[in-house]
Amino acid sequence: MNLTHIEHIGIAVKSLDDAIPFWEKQLGMKCYSIEEVKEQKVRTAFFKIGQSKIELLESTDPEGPIGKFIEKKGEGVQHIAFAVEGLQSNLDELAGNGVQLIDKAPRKGAEGLNIAFLHPKSTAGVLMELCEDPNK
Amino acid sequence: MNLTHIEHIGIAVKSLDDAIPFWEKQLGMKCYSIEEVKEQKVRTAFFKIGQSKIELLESTDPEGPIGKFIEKKGEGVQHIAFAVEGLQSNLDELAGNGVQLIDKAPRKGAEGLNIAFLHPKSTAGVLMELCEDPNK
Repeated sequence: MNLTHIEHIGIAVKSLDDAIPFWEKQLGMKCYSIEEVKEQKVRTAFFKIGQSKIELLESTDPEGPIGKFIEKKGEGVQHIAFAVEGLQSNLDELAGNGVQLIDKAPRKGAEGLNIAFLHPKSTAGVLMELCEDPNK
Repeated sequence: MNLTHIEHIGIAVKSLDDAIPFWEKQLGMKCYSIEEVKEQKVRTAFFKIGQSKIELLESTDPEGPIGKFIEKKGEGVQHIAFAVEGLQSNLDELAGNGVQLIDKAPRKGAEGLNIAFLHPKSTAGVLMELCEDPNK
């Protein structure tokens, strides 16, 4: 496994319009992108900080993963994402070691990254994403 | 406000002994420090990744903040911490802007950092810590 850095932290919020001003005005970060990821039923807002990003996630459907998360746990950190080199080979290694995967093969995520989620049952309750930049 | 990077992600776990092997063997990170922070009623385990750290938090008392968190929400991300330059002046600025603070002045945290927590009521449900390294 070759994790290089925290790619982003995904934070479930009820409303991007309500949350973005806190991150911009109080924390001094700049929202550089708002993107809808239809298959995940979310609208996302991205902020850059050091090597990493903050991804705010607003549900577009109560039955989507963010809608269900907020209903169950309230607003807060929904997942953490690590940048990795060699995503498929790392997924194969994890699966071989008995780690439960949500995605056995990479799929397209926000910002053009190849991504895969591990199952929180295998990761002490933390939903974990691995990301690989196909352009690197 | 001058946040430079994600200093760490704090993750509540039931047992360091159960969680550390996942981070070491499956994710390939090395636990470089285990430290008890008595006033917070936790034992912590640290892992380095890029500019940031992962801090696993095990409660030493069901009435402590991590014990209560796990009882309410289960294991998972409990707080995120940003590195900041000029902690006291940034706290004063936030308070002046109406942001609720748990710590109005810095106190000592793990790893010798000066730290302060913001109140999740002001930060869309995310418990947020600011950290300053007094040796920088």
